[in-house]
Amino acid sequence: MIGKISYGGITTPVGFRAAAATADIKGKSLERDDCGLILSDSPCAYAGVFTSNIVKAAPVLYDMELLSKGSSILAVLANSGNANACTGSEGMKACRDIALSYAAGLDIKPDNILLASTGVIGVPLPVDKIVNIREVLIDGLADDKGLDFAKAIMTTDTTVKETAVCVETKHGLITIGGCTKGAGMIAPSLATMLTFITTDALIEKRLLQKALYECAEETFNRVTVDGDMSTNDSIILLANGMSGAIVTEENYNDFKEGLITLMTYLAKKIALDGEGATRMITIKVNNAHTAEEARLCASKIANSPLVKTMFTGCDPNWGRLMASAGASGAKFDPDKVDIYFNDLHYVKNGVIIDYNLEEKAYEIMKDLKYTITLDLHAGEFSTHFYTCDLTYDYIKINADYRS
Amino acid sequence: MIGKISYGGITTPVGFRAAAATADIKGKSLERDDCGLILSDSPCAYAGVFTSNIVKAAPVLYDMELLSKGSSILAVLANSGNANACTGSEGMKACRDIALSYAAGLDIKPDNILLASTGVIGVPLPVDKIVNIREVLIDGLADDKGLDFAKAIMTTDTTVKETAVCVETKHGLITIGGCTKGAGMIAPSLATMLTFITTDALIEKRLLQKALYECAEETFNRVTVDGDMSTNDSIILLANGMSGAIVTEENYNDFKEGLITLMTYLAKKIALDGEGATRMITIKVNNAHTAEEARLCASKIANSPLVKTMFTGCDPNWGRLMASAGASGAKFDPDKVDIYFNDLHYVKNGVIIDYNLEEKAYEIMKDLKYTITLDLHAGEFSTHFYTCDLTYDYIKINADYRS
Repeated sequence: MIGKISYGGITTPVGFRAAAATADIKGKSLERDDCGLILSDSPCAYAGVFTSNIVKAAPVLYDMELLSKGSSILAVLANSGNANACTGSEGMKACRDIALSYAAGLDIKPDNILLASTGVIGVPLPVDKIVNIREVLIDGLADDKGLDFAKAIMTTDTTVKETAVCVETKHGLITIGGCTKGAGMIAPSLATMLTFITTDALIEKRLLQKALYECAEETFNRVTVDGDMSTNDSIILLANGMSGAIVTEENYNDFKEGLITLMTYLAKKIALDGEGATRMITIKVNNAHTAEEARLCASKIANSPLVKTMFTGCDPNWGRLMASAGASGAKFDPDKVDIYFNDLHYVKNGVIIDYNLEEKAYEIMKDLKYTITLDLHAGEFSTHFYTCDLTYDYIKINADYRS
Repeated sequence: MIGKISYGGITTPVGFRAAAATADIKGKSLERDDCGLILSDSPCAYAGVFTSNIVKAAPVLYDMELLSKGSSILAVLANSGNANACTGSEGMKACRDIALSYAAGLDIKPDNILLASTGVIGVPLPVDKIVNIREVLIDGLADDKGLDFAKAIMTTDTTVKETAVCVETKHGLITIGGCTKGAGMIAPSLATMLTFITTDALIEKRLLQKALYECAEETFNRVTVDGDMSTNDSIILLANGMSGAIVTEENYNDFKEGLITLMTYLAKKIALDGEGATRMITIKVNNAHTAEEARLCASKIANSPLVKTMFTGCDPNWGRLMASAGASGAKFDPDKVDIYFNDLHYVKNGVIIDYNLEEKAYEIMKDLKYTITLDLHAGEFSTHFYTCDLTYDYIKINADYRS
């Protein structure tokens, strides 16, 4: 059974410390931290899921290499303000130089350190600035600094996103903590989204990777803000085994349930904090012909600018939902579609039930969170997507991002 | 050889008349026409290309049936203010009733009339209002009313879009005229876009359909405003043969060249008049591995909200172009990509050539129209897409559309 989501984050599980500091990466002397460090007291099994964009940032390529090598991990260094993406061979050299420096400072091997970056693309990473604050970060490591780390990796995020969950399993109590950042360039297959998850479970690498992959499919790969897919998306999961509670095939589902609870919480936080977003909408597509068609349909609706501006205006313009579903590639009979706003049955057999329902639908759409369900009646595959409205502020943020 | 694009429209070719009138379809007593009628003096070969959305509006289904029947066409009745989409069996009945009424008024068969609608989805079409203005429309028919027709079909369009072109062929002079509407819900595979093209060429149905299909692929199917695909998109091409100039395989390419010139002009007008748009950008993708990958890559870039807001802010943030191409499904080596802003070589082998070029790129991006070219160096297939920037006004228009 799963304990309630509680306050906490990456330093909540046993044996993890964190720190944050400012390296002034953007050179604007901002009064906020832009670098964070995580250290485990004991070597961790490491699982990772990364962007499927073929243009991958240097730290993504770096971490993927450590994943394929099967390296044990002790530390993670993350920065905001610069993505170290589209930086060519210099970008890879920057990763190696930083890992070398921090490994020396922590007295571990360079292969024990993961790297993550987020921020502007195409600008060289200021390695010296990050190396210069090494001692500050290492000296600052503490087991109550998860929140500081979570804040340091924020870019256009307006809220800090962290949580922790306890899982009671047959083999003992396991804690999982996590934090995430991401507000724009968020789309299926991950987007400028960095997520760090720590756990004190004792679990072998293969099973850890399986759990992460399966949970990512249902959570982070079902979030969209703008349909763009970043060069830097990474979910890093570290398990240091320090709770002593082992995870095997026997209690795997308990662990997975805890992980999916934590990741769902964080993924929804991202949708709600979408750039400029004022509300979070869950799009459910039920009874599609195939699982892929369910995904295509939910994704098309969740990404449609016309649907997203309809959310902005609280306008229950169900025709846009129908048009979007029809353009998605999913096969269905338009004359059989039912649409619900929360529990309100609004469209039946492809037409609105009663125009007087518009007012009720409008009331629902004023909420901070609601669910729209399309029942295609075309099969038995269902899925969901988390999305947000598209507002002036999205444009303001992204038209001015670098200025 | 092709004559210059000239002023003119659907009534420029020999033997076509048009008219416009107001039926007050939205019931707001607006002082503008919302219905238009085209009549040919002689039966026309008819070609059509329609939305690939599986949710198709009633008039689309109606016209597709006439196309498959091989009906000769004499008239087209189009309305704005209501799309007659998602209206179920009542929507089809509305089409039949209107065609019956207008056929009687024009003393032709119902199967000689095409219908087209654009506007809000999911609201019953007010058949009576459209029937009530039948005599006004018929009495108003004249060979200089192409512009009135073009204005009557506008919705959120801010500019009227019409033109005509003359083609000198081996078998004589042919005139092609056309008008289009469309500003939002514009995307590949057509979107709330209605296009009417008339010609006095004498051409058989099969060859006419081939020409329309081939030209649509290169023009209207390469335009995007918001990536949404409407239920109503239609391109209707009527050829009445009244010039006496026959089109055969022999001079087919001359005719096609004229048609593509006309359709390119109209398609670019749509991109430039994208809802809220302030500029039109041509995205060229050169040397992709396959034709489909070229299309995917150009389409992904042209539809990316992050790229479109970068156009809004005149920010030459080439990293977003790289990230978008990388997420498109096209296969290429990021370290070999070249990017150009007009003729300015900006990125070479995946990295910016010189940060001092940013100012020059910024100057280019302030223009009303410019071209961004990505050379993937991955093969020999190239294509283009027409897109526009994403502004506050797009959101204003679409969040408030029905109010």
